[in-house]
Amino acid sequence: MARDPKYDILFDKVKIGPKVSPNRFFQTSHCAGVGSERPGTQAMFRGTKAEGGWGVVFTEFCSIHPESDEFPYTSARLWDEGDVRNLRPMCDEIHKHGGLSGVQLWYGGIHSPRLESREVSRSASCLPSNLLPARTLYAAECDEDDIKAVINMYVLAAKRAQDAGFDLLEVTAGDSTFPVQFLERRYNKRTDRYGGSLENRARVYIEIMTALKKACGDTSAITTRYEIDTLQGPHGLEAKDEGIRFVELMHKEGVCDLWAVKIGDYEEWGEDAGTSRFRKSGWMLPFVKEAKSVVGSTPVVVNGRYTSPDDMVAVIRAGIADIIGAARPSIADPFLPKKIEDGRPEDIRECIGCNQCVSKFNQSGLLNCTQNATAMEEYRRGWHPERFSRAKDPCSVLVVGGGPAGMECARVLGERGYDVHLREAEAELGGHLRNVIRYPRMNEWGRVTTYRQLQLSKMKNVEVHLGVGKMTADDILAYGADKVVIATGSHWATDGLGAEGHGTLPGCDASLPNCLTPEQILAGKPIPGERVVVLDGDGHFTGVSMAELAADLGKKVTLVTNMSDPAEYSQFTMEVQNNKRMLHEKGVDILRNHWVESYQDGKLTLFYLYRHGSALIDPEVGRMPRHESTAVTVLDVDAVILVTSRVPNHELFAVLKQRRGEWEANGLQGVYKVGDCNAPRQISDAVFDGHRLGREFDSPHPQYPLPWIRERQLWGAETVPALGDSRPAVEPAT
Amino acid sequence: MARDPKYDILFDKVKIGPKVSPNRFFQTSHCAGVGSERPGTQAMFRGTKAEGGWGVVFTEFCSIHPESDEFPYTSARLWDEGDVRNLRPMCDEIHKHGGLSGVQLWYGGIHSPRLESREVSRSASCLPSNLLPARTLYAAECDEDDIKAVINMYVLAAKRAQDAGFDLLEVTAGDSTFPVQFLERRYNKRTDRYGGSLENRARVYIEIMTALKKACGDTSAITTRYEIDTLQGPHGLEAKDEGIRFVELMHKEGVCDLWAVKIGDYEEWGEDAGTSRFRKSGWMLPFVKEAKSVVGSTPVVVNGRYTSPDDMVAVIRAGIADIIGAARPSIADPFLPKKIEDGRPEDIRECIGCNQCVSKFNQSGLLNCTQNATAMEEYRRGWHPERFSRAKDPCSVLVVGGGPAGMECARVLGERGYDVHLREAEAELGGHLRNVIRYPRMNEWGRVTTYRQLQLSKMKNVEVHLGVGKMTADDILAYGADKVVIATGSHWATDGLGAEGHGTLPGCDASLPNCLTPEQILAGKPIPGERVVVLDGDGHFTGVSMAELAADLGKKVTLVTNMSDPAEYSQFTMEVQNNKRMLHEKGVDILRNHWVESYQDGKLTLFYLYRHGSALIDPEVGRMPRHESTAVTVLDVDAVILVTSRVPNHELFAVLKQRRGEWEANGLQGVYKVGDCNAPRQISDAVFDGHRLGREFDSPHPQYPLPWIRERQLWGAETVPALGDSRPAVEPAT
Repeated sequence: MARDPKYDILFDKVKIGPKVSPNRFFQTSHCAGVGSERPGTQAMFRGTKAEGGWGVVFTEFCSIHPESDEFPYTSARLWDEGDVRNLRPMCDEIHKHGGLSGVQLWYGGIHSPRLESREVSRSASCLPSNLLPARTLYAAECDEDDIKAVINMYVLAAKRAQDAGFDLLEVTAGDSTFPVQFLERRYNKRTDRYGGSLENRARVYIEIMTALKKACGDTSAITTRYEIDTLQGPHGLEAKDEGIRFVELMHKEGVCDLWAVKIGDYEEWGEDAGTSRFRKSGWMLPFVKEAKSVVGSTPVVVNGRYTSPDDMVAVIRAGIADIIGAARPSIADPFLPKKIEDGRPEDIRECIGCNQCVSKFNQSGLLNCTQNATAMEEYRRGWHPERFSRAKDPCSVLVVGGGPAGMECARVLGERGYDVHLREAEAELGGHLRNVIRYPRMNEWGRVTTYRQLQLSKMKNVEVHLGVGKMTADDILAYGADKVVIATGSHWATDGLGAEGHGTLPGCDASLPNCLTPEQILAGKPIPGERVVVLDGDGHFTGVSMAELAADLGKKVTLVTNMSDPAEYSQFTMEVQNNKRMLHEKGVDILRNHWVESYQDGKLTLFYLYRHGSALIDPEVGRMPRHESTAVTVLDVDAVILVTSRVPNHELFAVLKQRRGEWEANGLQGVYKVGDCNAPRQISDAVFDGHRLGREFDSPHPQYPLPWIRERQLWGAETVPALGDSRPAVEPAT
Repeated sequence: MARDPKYDILFDKVKIGPKVSPNRFFQTSHCAGVGSERPGTQAMFRGTKAEGGWGVVFTEFCSIHPESDEFPYTSARLWDEGDVRNLRPMCDEIHKHGGLSGVQLWYGGIHSPRLESREVSRSASCLPSNLLPARTLYAAECDEDDIKAVINMYVLAAKRAQDAGFDLLEVTAGDSTFPVQFLERRYNKRTDRYGGSLENRARVYIEIMTALKKACGDTSAITTRYEIDTLQGPHGLEAKDEGIRFVELMHKEGVCDLWAVKIGDYEEWGEDAGTSRFRKSGWMLPFVKEAKSVVGSTPVVVNGRYTSPDDMVAVIRAGIADIIGAARPSIADPFLPKKIEDGRPEDIRECIGCNQCVSKFNQSGLLNCTQNATAMEEYRRGWHPERFSRAKDPCSVLVVGGGPAGMECARVLGERGYDVHLREAEAELGGHLRNVIRYPRMNEWGRVTTYRQLQLSKMKNVEVHLGVGKMTADDILAYGADKVVIATGSHWATDGLGAEGHGTLPGCDASLPNCLTPEQILAGKPIPGERVVVLDGDGHFTGVSMAELAADLGKKVTLVTNMSDPAEYSQFTMEVQNNKRMLHEKGVDILRNHWVESYQDGKLTLFYLYRHGSALIDPEVGRMPRHESTAVTVLDVDAVILVTSRVPNHELFAVLKQRRGEWEANGLQGVYKVGDCNAPRQISDAVFDGHRLGREFDSPHPQYPLPWIRERQLWGAETVPALGDSRPAVEPAT
């Protein structure tokens, strides 16, 4: 099918300095945990996006020098010839598909953790990092020689980038990097010609751009990513004040071929990578909308978690931007542009804004995606997001359970040509997501279901049976399928079982009216009384959602958690600050590092996890080897919502396995399990599990994964650099 | 010199199954962040310890299978032939020096994060991890086939280990791994023959050991590391109850060639790696002392941060252990055994118990060590802890400042043959450590100074000048040294400047009687009144130390921090739990995520960092783009102790640089800066900086580091495994 003409504008070519983007789709720089350390993964992850139609594809943040060593977070690097060799394949892959490759040149200054290089970073002033305040990270204050040295680092890295094949060289002044540390009053306490007035504070940023323009601008586009509003009010950059005035200043210099405008500083880059719980698509527009009017014909990129081509067109037609930037939408669907081009935008696998991707990076792990199980698997497992190998023996498969794992497994088996029956007990697909999307703020997560529902409906070899009730082992044995996949999910513990103590909690019993699980609440069980405790031992989104839900019902809510932060996992999704703000706004009290001793007669007895003595005392049987404390906090509580742990619905698989002797007579060749019924997990991992089983369904032992390529140094292989290599001098001659 | 005969016993050979250790020095398994991913770093880091006399040297925890993928934490792995190739050089290095190499076979079950493999781990019961409670980590419950499969994984990994050259194959049942998840009631909810009685719960652990003994025991020692007391009282394993009874049970089976006995579970492995702030050398003895009496002639290893050979001898003579285990002492001084053997135990560089090492691992970084700057640099920078290249041009060097960086720089320059003058303003060496070691619990950190003091005093080419007062630029120009190193340190901000807001705090002024810095307190400035707030924006040990110091003076103390945990960095040093216990015992209140608005007339006005709205509102100049809140908490406070940030003493270097034109006339060839005066940092980083400058003092640009070897995949190099490889089957045939 041809694309809808109303979307033609998205496929206009755009001139970016000496380069031309084939369209208006632009993958802005985003982390993935690969950098220049895993060259194959990097190349195929980014290259697949170019194949899917993204006209410009960037690296993640790319450190220009060991002084800006971001380890233990994985950045790309352009420190040496080894990095050039490792980033070149990415450029080659992107070029193969007609795209432009971009690199984000990054010098972190104050905020670089430097756990590999152990060098000293430099900045406008010697101050501690507010990003990682406990880690004793300070940058040294630059004198003028230091400023020249850092500018030289940018130039050297830019030349290496050209050598690797990058087309766009982006100086990032997002995420409170070096240029912003000069630009923002917060970070710049200087009294010389680089401090004080806006013009003085802007000087370094403009000098960097000017140096790059001179050194590389004839053949490469020199661009920038810029935080026009740090969301700190007058304490930082404000969009309508210095934020826009700086754009005017730099634009006058004629050194910038493209502006990618963003909001938020590094301390809260969750405001740039806003989750769907807190930010709806396009939330940045009030801040970024005026940049375009200042820079004339210079292209402007804006992001906003756009997945709808209509929204994209509106932004362009409104004159706000020339180019649609995207990070997460390009992860969730690398083929988003192609699907618009092919006239099937309904097939777009839309980002749900869960920030699973960045939450893994923030753990020093590898990106993954709830919607796209193939993200980061393109190279190491050879998975293509849109292409599936045909089954060698396309037998019949019964998938029992239509939650995330079951839906995805059925979808992949369907794509591979199996004869699939997906049977779901309830009247709708989604599994536990049917509840989750009705929690406050969570509706966008429904895209996990709607995407798969549509894809399943399009395949002639897949039948979806809804509302069929729970299947028994007898039902399954009698069903006649060659193979069976069990995907029966999990449920919340009804007895307070959780990681803290791994025991049930006396008096916590969801068969009573004053104890409730999330499922019960969503099923309509009333929350009695006024004073409600949410007992959160889970730490992801459910506890905080239940607290909000109860507060919205007018309850006086206390969130009790064994952890040190409410919704502790949200430190990784970067929602933790807004979670705390929301709880504060809604009057929810927070009690950290506490757990339940008992719940009797409306009294909830809590203990502090660290109430016993810090010294160890000699062991005696039956006694804690510390000075024991019996101190407790007793709350009068009308209801407790138990978000303590999940319990797998594992019985069906276990019974089928016990009855293995009956399989052959019933024509059953194999029974597999995926998702939460095997072990509860995050939704992204359940989707992955279903996907993987589908991909490897004809392997010798499909329940267990095949090896993947591990990109790591093998002993004896070459290293670059080698010991004794010299370092290029960046210091000005003295 | 020959060794003191009283230490001869430490050099007895010890039979361990079919192997013989050359002595009683045993580097127990410890993390380093290298694993089988950085083979050269691993080989030289461990091999250097063997060279220094450690008779047995282990890997870190070594995952036996992708189901126990510990990423984003770096374990060793024995998953495939690539891992064998990468661990073999470590064994070769150890053997070259006459040592035995050991591998710790690890299957993490519930606790494995699995961010690389994304597989499902297995355990006794399906429960969430208490180690990482927010990450939705559950293991699948084993049926009997699963148990056989996991045992097969141990056997396959053990065979790979033999292939790599390992002599000792250790099954770890420390850190709440798979065997302990069966053994502990907490984790084992089973009702089959693997659950219930101790004998049943012990079955899996004994089956693993038995399988290894059968498969590999003829030529390799099959050993175990065992947590005899989980320090949870009757909720877990107790040393005098099931802890010791299990030792009896397994000993009867005759399947264990060595017991390495430890305490503490994975949730608080800071009780195993106890810091000097909370645990003095040998703190485990009351828990582990009876194991030896149960196991007869089977060797027993005990750890205890032993650095004194007299203490080691006492433990052995008391019949508590046959072998001295050590992790941290072997990092701080890889040559500890050799120094005893050479009759110079006073040269031992003793571990200070700061847990800097593990704090880096816990950040997914690479180990480093406050005392030993060469740790992990043996391969990548070619640094040997005891050998130094001779200076090509041994000129005269003036080092200004005798803190950690200055002392270490002088020491290394001295070892390299330079003519060194180390000049310290005060009457003693140590810099800010002179204060730090007088904080509560910190005295052992004084070893940083005492070690260096002794080494400096032994070198004829080094002069140490104490109590010389602060040097001026004039003094230095007139001094006559060829080169100068400035190491003038830093001091605590006196005005409340910190990472939160990067501004001074109204009313916080340490020139007033009711505001104090740590230095002022240690210098004797009295803390007025009763109600004291410690304002901690630093997050390492100083804030919590000041709180304890004030509480010990009888004050009513509140610790206010912008972070989410008191002493937040101690989550990495693994002291956070005991810090909280100590603060609770001493009645210190904790206010998290708060900072100061003002301090006036005895009223300290605090605000919650997340008091403003979670939604963004359209930008307006001069206003925060959120629904602003003015909510505050006001405390009546008699004194505020300011632990907000440090300020470099940078003026001397800056002035000298400004007077560059005068250098030549004064015979001055170069001026360099090290440590806090350039940018404040942790002590380990200051020591490293001083060391590095000394090592590279004759490089072209000594202020800036030379490249090091980066062990990472280079594009085009071989990968093992490759796509399409099969995975060895571990499931029992069905």
